[in-house]
Amino acid sequence: MSDTLTVSLDVMGGDNGPETVLHGADIALLRNPSLRFELFGEDAAVSPILDKYPKLKAKSTFHGCEVSIAMDDKPSAALRRGRYKSGMWQAIDAVKSGSADVCISAGNTGALMAMSKFCLRTQPGITRPAMAAIWPTASGESIVLDVGANVGADADQLVEFSVMGAAMARALFDFDRPSVGLLNIGVEEVKGVEAVREAGALLKEASLETMKYHGFVEGDDLGKGTVDVVVTEGFAGNIALKTAEGTAKQIGGYLRAAMNRTWLAKLGYILARDAFEQLREKMDPRKVNGAVLLGLNGVVIKSHGGTDGEGFAAAIQLGHDMAKNQLMKKIDTDLQDFAEVRIQLEKMIEI
Amino acid sequence: MSDTLTVSLDVMGGDNGPETVLHGADIALLRNPSLRFELFGEDAAVSPILDKYPKLKAKSTFHGCEVSIAMDDKPSAALRRGRYKSGMWQAIDAVKSGSADVCISAGNTGALMAMSKFCLRTQPGITRPAMAAIWPTASGESIVLDVGANVGADADQLVEFSVMGAAMARALFDFDRPSVGLLNIGVEEVKGVEAVREAGALLKEASLETMKYHGFVEGDDLGKGTVDVVVTEGFAGNIALKTAEGTAKQIGGYLRAAMNRTWLAKLGYILARDAFEQLREKMDPRKVNGAVLLGLNGVVIKSHGGTDGEGFAAAIQLGHDMAKNQLMKKIDTDLQDFAEVRIQLEKMIEI
Repeated sequence: MSDTLTVSLDVMGGDNGPETVLHGADIALLRNPSLRFELFGEDAAVSPILDKYPKLKAKSTFHGCEVSIAMDDKPSAALRRGRYKSGMWQAIDAVKSGSADVCISAGNTGALMAMSKFCLRTQPGITRPAMAAIWPTASGESIVLDVGANVGADADQLVEFSVMGAAMARALFDFDRPSVGLLNIGVEEVKGVEAVREAGALLKEASLETMKYHGFVEGDDLGKGTVDVVVTEGFAGNIALKTAEGTAKQIGGYLRAAMNRTWLAKLGYILARDAFEQLREKMDPRKVNGAVLLGLNGVVIKSHGGTDGEGFAAAIQLGHDMAKNQLMKKIDTDLQDFAEVRIQLEKMIEI
Repeated sequence: MSDTLTVSLDVMGGDNGPETVLHGADIALLRNPSLRFELFGEDAAVSPILDKYPKLKAKSTFHGCEVSIAMDDKPSAALRRGRYKSGMWQAIDAVKSGSADVCISAGNTGALMAMSKFCLRTQPGITRPAMAAIWPTASGESIVLDVGANVGADADQLVEFSVMGAAMARALFDFDRPSVGLLNIGVEEVKGVEAVREAGALLKEASLETMKYHGFVEGDDLGKGTVDVVVTEGFAGNIALKTAEGTAKQIGGYLRAAMNRTWLAKLGYILARDAFEQLREKMDPRKVNGAVLLGLNGVVIKSHGGTDGEGFAAAIQLGHDMAKNQLMKKIDTDLQDFAEVRIQLEKMIEI
């Protein structure tokens, strides 16, 4: 791979479209001068804004697209109307054709998933792609998947998610054998779902070189950072992610209200301003913006639709790291390793 | 119902057993002098501690039990060993026999659920009991169920949970028509689970007098307090509950670390101490201690095993409120109302 890394952008995607996307790309370029961009969007909307970022313009190729996907288009409608023609589709297709290393979009999540699956197809050995989020923890960061690409998952799919998540952890964090936990519930009578137990048994038996299987984890382990990769099906994963976001906002609200109640509290707030600033930075959702669609023949990153330039730049940075550290290749190799181990396991059981 | 309300306590339950339970009961009695207690536990462990609370002792009847359920007993084993004989069983049985209005236990969750189901049986019209937690929100409190009594739920069960949750909201908060939302995920392509959609359609059609059906809510609506009652199956509900607890702890940790970093921050902390105290109180998990087992022929409350006397007193208070406000009767009536509406709905569909 040459040092230059090319990112394709769905410029019309997100609540603020080109304003945010191009601002984000400009910030990302400042941080990674070796980046190049393939931009896809409507000429009339993009060109005037692109002119405001001459450095970005010099490192970009712009492709005018007539169709844009709206944030509330249904995936099926988006696919019918936007296939081949829309900026979102063409940004994804740039990864398929090899003209870009990674695609980033802040657009309609359902449409992005549908188009990515349709255009890139799943990697060999993967039944369903998953969406992986980066989760800030008390001790650093973890990866959590699936956060909503699918509802439900059987044992094999949970194992596939585990392999992909571990590969992503190795691409993102700098260590060889990330720990992986399966999200479960601790109420003893219930003992969680059959699929989770089966997946646990499989991962334990396989004892792969690419991950340390930790066992089950519960909801409160997410914030603790008990493991590097937390695996669950998409319904529970999405609810956990949004519940944590909601709780963080709620506590932020409590804190603001408490600090505004008396003049002594206000004075205390002023004195401790740097500390509050650090806290705010620690809790800044923009810093962990970007979920990775895993299991496709190409890397696609979904940015929050409502983020700003700083947040979009973080999603580009994530895409940069994933492509640079060969996420796809790592997943491929790991899946092959697992497939071999699995064959051996099956033979052992037969004997 | 007379003014006296009798509470049966599984005195051996919880991480600290009699110490916490009796301390909690003493606090609760101070707040509600009309309370009476039926205490169940091992004589040697309970009597010396009960002697330290003469006022409590005067309002209690103690029943010595030879068997106690350990926190890590499997439910099946607990049931085999502890049925009829254990303090937990007898505390539940006191509700069945009518010698107590409500039972509180900080013991083994799985065992408590298994014994409660076995001893009290489900109410007519209920397929499965659910566990309901009180969730502190930005605007007050909501009720969330199921938080782990079962894994999975079909549309009919989600509707039953909705009816029970609305009845509990009316018993706990003082208004006539609580709003009810079904927890779902917003990713459009996926559109959530079939059962959730079906339950939504049923609740919408039924338009019951006892609740306002709001529609779907997402994970971040929990902290916002978008609705009074949030309904979901037990796996996602348990994970949401523990994720929120974990996130609150994590942010508390960030805050403590930030306030300790510089002397200016420390000074600010001292000045704003009252504000931080308020915040701590707002986030105090003891204040919302106690989950209600709904759908049984009797009210059983599960306290956190690791709580202290103050927390256990909150669980007793919750039990007191539920019994005083006739939770059981409300659920019964509401279920009958719903059954009638349902028959009409079915007739309409036939015509």
